[in-house]
Amino acid sequence: MTVHGATWVQGAAGSQFPITNLPYGAFTVTSDERPRLGVAIGDHVLDLAAVLPDVAALAEPSLNAFMAMGRSAWAEVRARIIDLLCDTSEQATVEPHLVPIRSVQMHLPLEVADYVDFYSSEHHARNLGRILRPGQPELADNWKHLPIGYHGRAGTARVSGTPVVRPRGQRLSPSTSQPEHGPTRRLDIEAEVGWVVGVPSELGRPVPLHAFRDHVFGACLVNDWSARDLQSWEYVPLGPFLGKSFLTSVSPWIVPLAALDDAWLPPVERDTPLLAYLDDTGRRDGIDLTLEVRLNGTVVSRPPFAGMYWTAAQQLAHLTTNGASVRTGDLYASGTVSGPEPNQRGSLIELSWNGTAPIRLDDGSTRTFLEDGDEVIISATAPGPQGTTIGFGSVRGRVVAE
Amino acid sequence: MTVHGATWVQGAAGSQFPITNLPYGAFTVTSDERPRLGVAIGDHVLDLAAVLPDVAALAEPSLNAFMAMGRSAWAEVRARIIDLLCDTSEQATVEPHLVPIRSVQMHLPLEVADYVDFYSSEHHARNLGRILRPGQPELADNWKHLPIGYHGRAGTARVSGTPVVRPRGQRLSPSTSQPEHGPTRRLDIEAEVGWVVGVPSELGRPVPLHAFRDHVFGACLVNDWSARDLQSWEYVPLGPFLGKSFLTSVSPWIVPLAALDDAWLPPVERDTPLLAYLDDTGRRDGIDLTLEVRLNGTVVSRPPFAGMYWTAAQQLAHLTTNGASVRTGDLYASGTVSGPEPNQRGSLIELSWNGTAPIRLDDGSTRTFLEDGDEVIISATAPGPQGTTIGFGSVRGRVVAE
Repeated sequence: MTVHGATWVQGAAGSQFPITNLPYGAFTVTSDERPRLGVAIGDHVLDLAAVLPDVAALAEPSLNAFMAMGRSAWAEVRARIIDLLCDTSEQATVEPHLVPIRSVQMHLPLEVADYVDFYSSEHHARNLGRILRPGQPELADNWKHLPIGYHGRAGTARVSGTPVVRPRGQRLSPSTSQPEHGPTRRLDIEAEVGWVVGVPSELGRPVPLHAFRDHVFGACLVNDWSARDLQSWEYVPLGPFLGKSFLTSVSPWIVPLAALDDAWLPPVERDTPLLAYLDDTGRRDGIDLTLEVRLNGTVVSRPPFAGMYWTAAQQLAHLTTNGASVRTGDLYASGTVSGPEPNQRGSLIELSWNGTAPIRLDDGSTRTFLEDGDEVIISATAPGPQGTTIGFGSVRGRVVAE
Repeated sequence: MTVHGATWVQGAAGSQFPITNLPYGAFTVTSDERPRLGVAIGDHVLDLAAVLPDVAALAEPSLNAFMAMGRSAWAEVRARIIDLLCDTSEQATVEPHLVPIRSVQMHLPLEVADYVDFYSSEHHARNLGRILRPGQPELADNWKHLPIGYHGRAGTARVSGTPVVRPRGQRLSPSTSQPEHGPTRRLDIEAEVGWVVGVPSELGRPVPLHAFRDHVFGACLVNDWSARDLQSWEYVPLGPFLGKSFLTSVSPWIVPLAALDDAWLPPVERDTPLLAYLDDTGRRDGIDLTLEVRLNGTVVSRPPFAGMYWTAAQQLAHLTTNGASVRTGDLYASGTVSGPEPNQRGSLIELSWNGTAPIRLDDGSTRTFLEDGDEVIISATAPGPQGTTIGFGSVRGRVVAE
């Protein structure tokens, strides 16, 4: 366990990016340069290639090469960064490579290989069941036996801040019951946590629960924008497709697992026996994150991640149990994070109960689904070592008319 | 229209790789070298970097860079290859770069970006409806309005010949109605045609039907191996996941669209009016391919591709109509190709009618689903110019015990 000293960087202590966090991202200062890799510290970004020139992977424009190096390299680089930022004798040489965070443009920090989206909040799954399939069981028979998930479109994962162009597509006309083509009328969010794979696995070799940390590099925030009317028309029998594929926004900072050491906790109690490859009895694979969803500045939800039924380790074990391999850059997301309380729901279809109960914003307006011009910001924090708070930054997007 | 002369390559005329075909692939001769790009001609592979050293993209180990160059570059390179292989004055310099096809190892010819699998054969969709949902309508309400599809796992696309390790996973125990974990008992094939994107599109810019040839580089064969027991347990409500993700086999040769000029024909008649972005009235976007499926040497099916309800151009228009972008290396497959006759079905679940009607092989044995040691070879041909036949080569795989 690394002992963190105090950093000489002003303003880091007490910020969302203290010395115990050090999330990785890709940034530019001028519009014509190639993205550079950095870690966030307080209000600054440390230019990694400048201070660790011997690590060739840190001179790449995305994290993939560094993430592929594996746990010992991740630990060594993290220890060296901590030393550089805590040792006052380094300050004079390192300080010129701290760039004010307000002056940088952030980029997608990884090249996304495969993108998988899970459905692992019991509260979310039950809410959707009640809303969409009234009179039927809230959960499908399989839900408590395996983490339900599906593949999404990797090519439309974009960094936080990318405009959310209202997608067009087929939806049923309420008057004719025939499909028509036009802009979605039910544009929604899904507040999620994403996990990024660093070290690949081999085809035919499942990744057991205990090997999670050998493969996964870190965590981020994901907003899986959803067009509910497109989705409900298309999804039988092969699942969501165009209702999701137009954009998936990813936060610019990848929080390394080492920063989350103090946030792990036992997962929620399971009421259904699990098959061996998913049985995490005695493991601390749950994680204590609290998300916050703001719509036009109003906090509309604070979803607690600790209550997720399926853990990130189980999701990885499940998605490889058939022999499927993972690659550097694979991103898999938790599914919408919703808690048991109405103000802990991670999507508008839940918060407005399918549009029947509009939510009120601080400016007095109400919302069911998103209107053009609306801005959504999802952020999260976790408890860090020594009383610090580990911030995830945020994933944001503003809706623009198509 | 390029006029094809006779080639000086012995054995090309009348083979599946005549001068009118020239499909692209990636090959090695020794096990320690990087893959090289080539075109197939008769019984040989032409080493492209050796004969066209000025085209830097042809020195790459996959087709992606070349495919990204676009239509005019594809046409120019094709014309130059035809000249080299037809002009006898070139023979002495070119012939040393023809490698016997039997001496090469083929590799996955592209880096797959996103993989999408459609469901575009009406016969297949109706058969599956009858088998899996008896008493309900054969087709879902949406089927005739849009090409149903879903994202698959790009990272487990592998070249033809990759062993098919029988996947394990959750399936319902017939005796207890509880899930158990073990090797699939219902391993199946899906005979499909795949389309490879060369030129990317922009986020927010749909690709209309008429722009199909500006983006799509060529076609290949796909076997979308499926574990039906895993799939049926997991797929509600988000679609297929582990039942498909363990392996998708791709043929080593990408047939360029230019080789298919004589194979286009009007699509099948539609009985349901189409929305404007899918309306291909008057277009010749259907294609006259005949597939052949061999199981342990016995031809078990000859699925006709001309009868597909949705065309490749419609599939591309649909998958981008919400603004989703495509990238170089995107692969999208047709879905199982099945014709109206029992011996035209492209999957074993159809051929054996869900296991109730075993099929008989030439050696006297019978099959419902695949047994360990079984080998499946899918091939296809299209009519080419001047009475030639355009062969797709084949996609093959042998099942090995897990």
